[in-house]
Amino acid sequence: MSNIITPNFENIVDSYNRIIKYSHNTPVLTSKSINNFLNTNIFFKCENFQKVGAFKFRGAINSILSLSKAELQKGVATHSSGNHAAALALSAKIVNTKAYIVMPQNAPEIKKQAVKSYGAIITYCEPTLDARETNLNKIVKETGATFIHPYNNFNVISGQGTAAYELINKIPDIDIVMAPVGGGGLLSGTAIAAKGLNKNIKVFGAEPKNADDAFQSFTHKKLIPSDNPITIADGLLTSLGTMTFKIICKDVEKIITVQEETIIKAMRLIWERMKIIIEPSSAVPLAAIMENENLFRNKKIGIILTGGNVDLSSLYYFKKS
Amino acid sequence: MSNIITPNFENIVDSYNRIIKYSHNTPVLTSKSINNFLNTNIFFKCENFQKVGAFKFRGAINSILSLSKAELQKGVATHSSGNHAAALALSAKIVNTKAYIVMPQNAPEIKKQAVKSYGAIITYCEPTLDARETNLNKIVKETGATFIHPYNNFNVISGQGTAAYELINKIPDIDIVMAPVGGGGLLSGTAIAAKGLNKNIKVFGAEPKNADDAFQSFTHKKLIPSDNPITIADGLLTSLGTMTFKIICKDVEKIITVQEETIIKAMRLIWERMKIIIEPSSAVPLAAIMENENLFRNKKIGIILTGGNVDLSSLYYFKKS
Repeated sequence: MSNIITPNFENIVDSYNRIIKYSHNTPVLTSKSINNFLNTNIFFKCENFQKVGAFKFRGAINSILSLSKAELQKGVATHSSGNHAAALALSAKIVNTKAYIVMPQNAPEIKKQAVKSYGAIITYCEPTLDARETNLNKIVKETGATFIHPYNNFNVISGQGTAAYELINKIPDIDIVMAPVGGGGLLSGTAIAAKGLNKNIKVFGAEPKNADDAFQSFTHKKLIPSDNPITIADGLLTSLGTMTFKIICKDVEKIITVQEETIIKAMRLIWERMKIIIEPSSAVPLAAIMENENLFRNKKIGIILTGGNVDLSSLYYFKKS
Repeated sequence: MSNIITPNFENIVDSYNRIIKYSHNTPVLTSKSINNFLNTNIFFKCENFQKVGAFKFRGAINSILSLSKAELQKGVATHSSGNHAAALALSAKIVNTKAYIVMPQNAPEIKKQAVKSYGAIITYCEPTLDARETNLNKIVKETGATFIHPYNNFNVISGQGTAAYELINKIPDIDIVMAPVGGGGLLSGTAIAAKGLNKNIKVFGAEPKNADDAFQSFTHKKLIPSDNPITIADGLLTSLGTMTFKIICKDVEKIITVQEETIIKAMRLIWERMKIIIEPSSAVPLAAIMENENLFRNKKIGIILTGGNVDLSSLYYFKKS
């Protein structure tokens, strides 16, 4: 593992300069009532307002902009049922190349539509990792497209780190920065950005107890993937990769696991008090604060709200429409 | 009617200077995808991020800050089941006076809780206008509290106008500013602010066809109240008052009525594309654009998003919590 080359702070700065023409420098919001309620001072970096509604756009556009001309001509490929697929599809559209996306056929209709609307070439497959990888390998072989892994990828990690880079440049004196952890791309990039800007900022990961592979891997110092995790935070089902594990072991101070019911409470608190729409994964760091009030009391905390893509059709107003 | 004294532009500026210590200068957001979809250039003034989650805080705090010391000691009173009640309750709490709120006993639990949480003294009554007014008059007589009408009130109108004042100061070159119209407090204040800043800005009101008293009154040049209107835009059930009618006749160019299904579509568009929570009333101006694309094509339009207080308990994620 020691021979894996990981991004450094300079790579984050380069990525920021590369993508900022295309990405939003999203707003940082605060909520007096949430701060009063938890005796903290939280700064929410709103990646739910990012393009495609999720931070994933940063890593995807950064990867594509880092390709050679020859590579670009052949397009990019990935397998994903979520935000990475939409992010890669839009990024490919922006630079006028092809995106080949392998999606499980049972992916939510809303996600299929989003990817389709960006003009990606979709291949549907059985909903197993094996089927996804087989289909992806076949496409890569046939087209010469570059596989952009959703998180275990140098330029994806560098791109995701630009969210924390923007946040900490805006609020330089935070004590702690916290991101949810699934595959670990965001948490890795966040850690590199934070430590590069100010070594004293503590970096915490937040993870559902029901999908705690990062906590297990971090604690036992070896990769221990989750086995069929079930959590409402559907963006955090994936397990760490070799590259994200290496970075997290080096630069992250703590991984906190949280209960499902706290995730839902935290999500509702943000919806009701801040009037913004976030997906369940985004609520996991706030849930970590709610379950560990003493740890965070009177601290200045930066949180990356990862995205806002949720299915609203169950809401009273939209049921009939 | 001609002897009713209405606020002028100077009153709006004074109100702005009076309240800005207490209110949020809320952000102005844009959405590329909504602009592309409708061939317009819309600037949304996000009063859903205002204190108590609605523009009503502006008029309430402005009214309270305009009272004499003697009046302040006796408190304020109103009847309302909605955002005005919460806004007046919080405003009273801020200046450490009493708020007497008459609410219909069938008001939504979430609204009762909000008003209660700000420490207001609540009197529940039968859900009729007669019962509300009888109870209110009794309280005013007993306590000497000042009745703050939700819209037909000089200082309330001046306060509501500060939202458009902030919006147009930020985006001075808009062609049109549009606000929903219920009792007309917001639209009146918006018109005075807009015309005071730039006479060339057109001021439009947007109203549900199912509650079109402002359109009827405006067209026939006499007050024609709605009779038991039914609309999803529950903040717009009230009818114009004498003061708001006078201002609207003078300074508003057009009132556009919209269908219920367009309100829902517009609301969903804002939730899904902008990832912010707005109440149905807020969606009425966007609905007016969706039903009249030619009228708004390539125009720069300011819209006041009035509030974000909706009951989220029907949403899939929150059903069990």
